Amino acid sequence: MTSRDECVGLDQKDPLAELRSEFILDDSLIYLDGNSLGPLTTSSRERVRTATEREWGEGLVRSWGSAGWMEQPTRLGDRVARLIGAGPGAVVVADTLTFLLAKLLGTALELRPGRTTVITDRANFHSDLYIAEGMARLTSRGVRVVAIDRNRLDEYLNDDVAVVMLTHVDFRTGEMLDLSGITARVHQAGALMIWDFAHSTGAVPLDVTTANVDFAAGCTYKYVNAGPGGPGFAYVAPRWHAEIRNVLPGWLGHVAPFDFEETFRPAPGVRQLVTSSPSVLALAALEGALDVWDRVDMSEVRTKSLALTDLFIELVEETLPGEFEIATPRSHDQRGSQVALRHSEGYGIVRALLERGVIGDFRDPDICRFGFAPLYVRYVDVYDAVGHLVEVLEKGEHQDDRFRVRHAVT
Amino acid sequence: MTSRDECVGLDQKDPLAELRSEFILDDSLIYLDGNSLGPLTTSSRERVRTATEREWGEGLVRSWGSAGWMEQPTRLGDRVARLIGAGPGAVVVADTLTFLLAKLLGTALELRPGRTTVITDRANFHSDLYIAEGMARLTSRGVRVVAIDRNRLDEYLNDDVAVVMLTHVDFRTGEMLDLSGITARVHQAGALMIWDFAHSTGAVPLDVTTANVDFAAGCTYKYVNAGPGGPGFAYVAPRWHAEIRNVLPGWLGHVAPFDFEETFRPAPGVRQLVTSSPSVLALAALEGALDVWDRVDMSEVRTKSLALTDLFIELVEETLPGEFEIATPRSHDQRGSQVALRHSEGYGIVRALLERGVIGDFRDPDICRFGFAPLYVRYVDVYDAVGHLVEVLEKGEHQDDRFRVRHAVT
Repeated sequence: MTSRDECVGLDQKDPLAELRSEFILDDSLIYLDGNSLGPLTTSSRERVRTATEREWGEGLVRSWGSAGWMEQPTRLGDRVARLIGAGPGAVVVADTLTFLLAKLLGTALELRPGRTTVITDRANFHSDLYIAEGMARLTSRGVRVVAIDRNRLDEYLNDDVAVVMLTHVDFRTGEMLDLSGITARVHQAGALMIWDFAHSTGAVPLDVTTANVDFAAGCTYKYVNAGPGGPGFAYVAPRWHAEIRNVLPGWLGHVAPFDFEETFRPAPGVRQLVTSSPSVLALAALEGALDVWDRVDMSEVRTKSLALTDLFIELVEETLPGEFEIATPRSHDQRGSQVALRHSEGYGIVRALLERGVIGDFRDPDICRFGFAPLYVRYVDVYDAVGHLVEVLEKGEHQDDRFRVRHAVT
Repeated sequence: MTSRDECVGLDQKDPLAELRSEFILDDSLIYLDGNSLGPLTTSSRERVRTATEREWGEGLVRSWGSAGWMEQPTRLGDRVARLIGAGPGAVVVADTLTFLLAKLLGTALELRPGRTTVITDRANFHSDLYIAEGMARLTSRGVRVVAIDRNRLDEYLNDDVAVVMLTHVDFRTGEMLDLSGITARVHQAGALMIWDFAHSTGAVPLDVTTANVDFAAGCTYKYVNAGPGGPGFAYVAPRWHAEIRNVLPGWLGHVAPFDFEETFRPAPGVRQLVTSSPSVLALAALEGALDVWDRVDMSEVRTKSLALTDLFIELVEETLPGEFEIATPRSHDQRGSQVALRHSEGYGIVRALLERGVIGDFRDPDICRFGFAPLYVRYVDVYDAVGHLVEVLEKGEHQDDRFRVRHAVT
């Protein structure tokens, strides 16, 4: 079994180790919930201060021009693009993931007018299920959403399928789907593919170009570290740029917003997907987070991510044999950057760990979820987290009366 | 004609005068563009710092519970409610104005299933026109949007009209419409009324309860001072709470978000209109702005607003007779809190004023727009702004070559 000294050694050799100092993280905490909310970077803190106190406070309305607020959605989009393997001009930052999925679904359905089926994953994140149903109902031409077992996708692919919308990394188990393979099968059926990258962006290398993805959207508040409720982003393959239509249009997606025309004329490319004035403070936090990402090689992130999750699984199995069902795939090509442990007393376990400063989260009915973000999680953190887990179970801390009634653990 | 000394005297007697010190405003500027972007308050600066550096930075994901982030949409909604005459539980803060209008239109159309006409104002803000068209097209049951001359509304009200959507204060001219009267006429035709309060909230007293308004939405970055791209808000009359449906649903509007149910079950009341996790930093800025509004009596705001706009009109007419067409109504009951001056060289005039530190804005084709926000604009500011305007025109500064090519003046 890997020792703590070996973990210290791994940290010393880690090419990403120096990045931890960019994050404001109390060393008394072991933060394994960056898959829910990434921590604050020094650069985001400074960017938010500047945007609030200088750009808004001093520049006032002039900052829409002088501070470049108008161009933020596409300028930051181009920086997010690097994280998903997209070229410049193909990603826009706007709204939230759910609204962007709505827009992508709306335009994808229009691109397949003769087809009436939207396929999604029964285990998808719930907002994805809700917005898919919502859009199907709005586009009242008999579109139906079929939420399936994703492992049986091929059985459902037929010439009535307009769109398949899947989340690339499962939010519960951390299972990663085959981006290229599924996209190709969906295309073979004549359908379009929308990927949700909520748990992928900044967690695993993505290459939408090679994988021939049509559309994708993601959030920035998880592994990207853009802060609570941070903006979403959308990718549209360049081959679709001339054909998409923002079904929820607003003035900032107009080709000339200040011409105030009565009829919506879309801006070229992904820019038309912007609806409203973006939250400048939220974009500033994202900009700061991207200052760190600009320095990062995603292949190094992936190598460390797999090493951290492998180490966690190894230590759990060695120290607590049979205690947990490990819901996350062992196979590297099916794993995101989190590990999910199933346990009937999982809620109490996560709460007891929280009291020890080990922050993970719980998902009904029995999943203890631990995210391993390679930019700031250390090998010793993994070692120490498992040490705490062993002590919680040995001392029965998870069976404390206070944990009998469940409250949300975000 | 009112003298500068008299203006100094008016400021000394102004019951709102002390509020100016809550704003971070350089005394070398005369800020008459709070109808586009309100200035930063000390309280917003502090709230954004706290939310960023303490709640996100130190509390991390735990702050969704411990810092009350989950309840912000309704808690802040209850504070915005005071500004529009709504009771508790009837206003929610979320998304942006345009998305909230989309949701209100969507649910209103469902409440009038046999009717197919949406009426709006040809002179409405463009996002409103675009989103109305977008929603009509999405709800593809033959709904058509008719953009009319709002003065001829009665001619268009018939039993096919499902919804009328108007902006209460015209963004170009500052004309204020008759909230109660129009709502009553729309109801008489069996239609529902959606009001856009973008240029009304914090600018004029509003009483949605007495006016029997069905639905309303607004933004918070203008007179409310919540910062660039600040969140929107929506009002739903309590009589509709049991009947509305969020047509763009997401997990945070679910009755039990952490139950992760496959099917959307709406939270009670307006809460269901929340779709995604809100930007906590944007909400923090709004919270700070509301700290000031909590201390304000809207009738005092109205009294000063009318005095400021009267004074501006008087001074412009006295010092520059015949130079401008005053597009804003003289009648108090038809005036918001801005004055629009038409001039064929309006663009150059606004740019030349900007260089003198008098910030207004320009709207095609010929409107110089000046907003008078009673919380921080002083009577002497009005006097001095007109003084600058006189000098610009006397010296021909507005005809400078640099102003021949128009750039956006936000």
